[in-house]
Amino acid sequence: MRGLVLSAGTAKFEQELPAPNASASETRVRVLSAGVCATDLALARGYMDFEGIPGHEFCGVALDGPLEGKRVVGEINAACGTCSACRDGLGRHCSERTVLGILGRSGAFADELALPTENLLEVPDSVSTDAATFCEPLAAAWEIAEQIDLVAGESALVCGDGRLGLLCAHVLAAHGLNVTLAGRHAERANLLGQELTFAEGLLEPDAPREPRYSIVVEATGKPEVFPLALQCLRPRGTLVLKTTSERPGAFDLAPLVVNEITLLGSRCGPFAPALASLASGTPTVENMITARFPLERATDALHAASQRGALKVLIDVHDS
Amino acid sequence: MRGLVLSAGTAKFEQELPAPNASASETRVRVLSAGVCATDLALARGYMDFEGIPGHEFCGVALDGPLEGKRVVGEINAACGTCSACRDGLGRHCSERTVLGILGRSGAFADELALPTENLLEVPDSVSTDAATFCEPLAAAWEIAEQIDLVAGESALVCGDGRLGLLCAHVLAAHGLNVTLAGRHAERANLLGQELTFAEGLLEPDAPREPRYSIVVEATGKPEVFPLALQCLRPRGTLVLKTTSERPGAFDLAPLVVNEITLLGSRCGPFAPALASLASGTPTVENMITARFPLERATDALHAASQRGALKVLIDVHDS
Repeated sequence: MRGLVLSAGTAKFEQELPAPNASASETRVRVLSAGVCATDLALARGYMDFEGIPGHEFCGVALDGPLEGKRVVGEINAACGTCSACRDGLGRHCSERTVLGILGRSGAFADELALPTENLLEVPDSVSTDAATFCEPLAAAWEIAEQIDLVAGESALVCGDGRLGLLCAHVLAAHGLNVTLAGRHAERANLLGQELTFAEGLLEPDAPREPRYSIVVEATGKPEVFPLALQCLRPRGTLVLKTTSERPGAFDLAPLVVNEITLLGSRCGPFAPALASLASGTPTVENMITARFPLERATDALHAASQRGALKVLIDVHDS
Repeated sequence: MRGLVLSAGTAKFEQELPAPNASASETRVRVLSAGVCATDLALARGYMDFEGIPGHEFCGVALDGPLEGKRVVGEINAACGTCSACRDGLGRHCSERTVLGILGRSGAFADELALPTENLLEVPDSVSTDAATFCEPLAAAWEIAEQIDLVAGESALVCGDGRLGLLCAHVLAAHGLNVTLAGRHAERANLLGQELTFAEGLLEPDAPREPRYSIVVEATGKPEVFPLALQCLRPRGTLVLKTTSERPGAFDLAPLVVNEITLLGSRCGPFAPALASLASGTPTVENMITARFPLERATDALHAASQRGALKVLIDVHDS
């Protein structure tokens, strides 16, 4: 099959790759569309020493199993089912897990992938293949709602108006919070079909900041934003960390203690509410697509996604 | 009156200080006993540019007001009552607050102090003056129980077998958690009347660590312990930060995101449950007293408290 292969810091499109092995409990999926995520760009730079086919945002068609012939999306963490985390119902934290296109499992920038059958969800007819490709990052945004009680009327700030920031802002707004988006692209405040307040320049080093938000989401991935985000948070507020950085930062944790801040690491999330949200017509994720490339041009897709101002770049793999 | 005065990095006992002004809503308190805390040592080194009389752990006798003649302890944060935090019931986070012996309010290393009358609690006869002096740090340990649901049977690790670490370990054990204490003094594991597991050397840089605890409390105040504490925490676990450090550390926050860790800053806590706990006879806090000095020797008390291996140092001010 065809696919993009990362190896030793290089990314190369290849024509003659073996199809992924699917065990009896797994389903083979023909990829229709895949999305490029910041993690893919980091992997291409050598993050986690990943070698193989990246890509974890996809919509495809099941080639066998109970969903054969149906369009599907899939949770990307494949759990062992027996470790202590799995026994506690935390399969996404399984210590033996593989992760589609990230850890020990070939990903979606290819003709085919394989995932445990139990990870797959059928995509309703009302959700386009493009929109379904956003299910994984939207699920990651929904993870915030799974981890903390979101109270309607509370004020929230999302730092970063990139791919993940916009989706987090949507999920908070969908729960009735008053959401302010901080970034550099005011035109994105209403991109997903909701009216958000936009705070331009709030994250510039010298900008005035007030401790007025109950929830702040850090979605820039820049360590230097961390102390600035803290300054926007009310005492006893929650700072949600949605992105990892490849470089550690020097932090003073004293304000966390003095103001009794909760810092919440947040990663992959539940697909079902994300898919239901897409089926309801919001967020209007297709508005985030800034470029698309065929699979043969997957390296161009990575390059386009790394450009300043790029939002979602899709890789078109098969039409059906 | 007599008192210890910090000024420009020096600590000096003085005989002729003015008694603190008490407003109509405040009560004057004659100090019986005061405890030396790590924060006092930091203030003496210049932390927060504090000038004046330090000391915030005390038991005293009310000299006027509704509790006149009674032994009292008192919450150390004096709130304005009108700001946004106060209106939300978070007086300990009042943006205009003064803090006894820490911020804009003369402290307990003196013959007298003044606090808002509403901050004072009467000490039951069954609680000795020595034990009551531990009410403030014990309340800080109880703050953990106010911030998170402590579930009996869960496993918890307390990093640091110093003053605050021991009290935190007690509060977790009192809630039925299986508590392991990590430090350098195995003999302290049972000091407070409860059988704790002791993990010697767990926080040495090269020691093997497993992600097995649901809750880890950082009570060493050393930034270098932070990443080691994280390694002991299960996915989705909670790391409680009970101490501030005067120096920032360089941290990699990525493990927080990947493992969806909650980092919880925790500071002052509720006095009522702490006092009730002391009245019940546990923890046996008097066992923590390693030295005591009269007020005239308050500088010696600070010195003694700064010695390696010191636990609680008390300053005896008045007999009754």
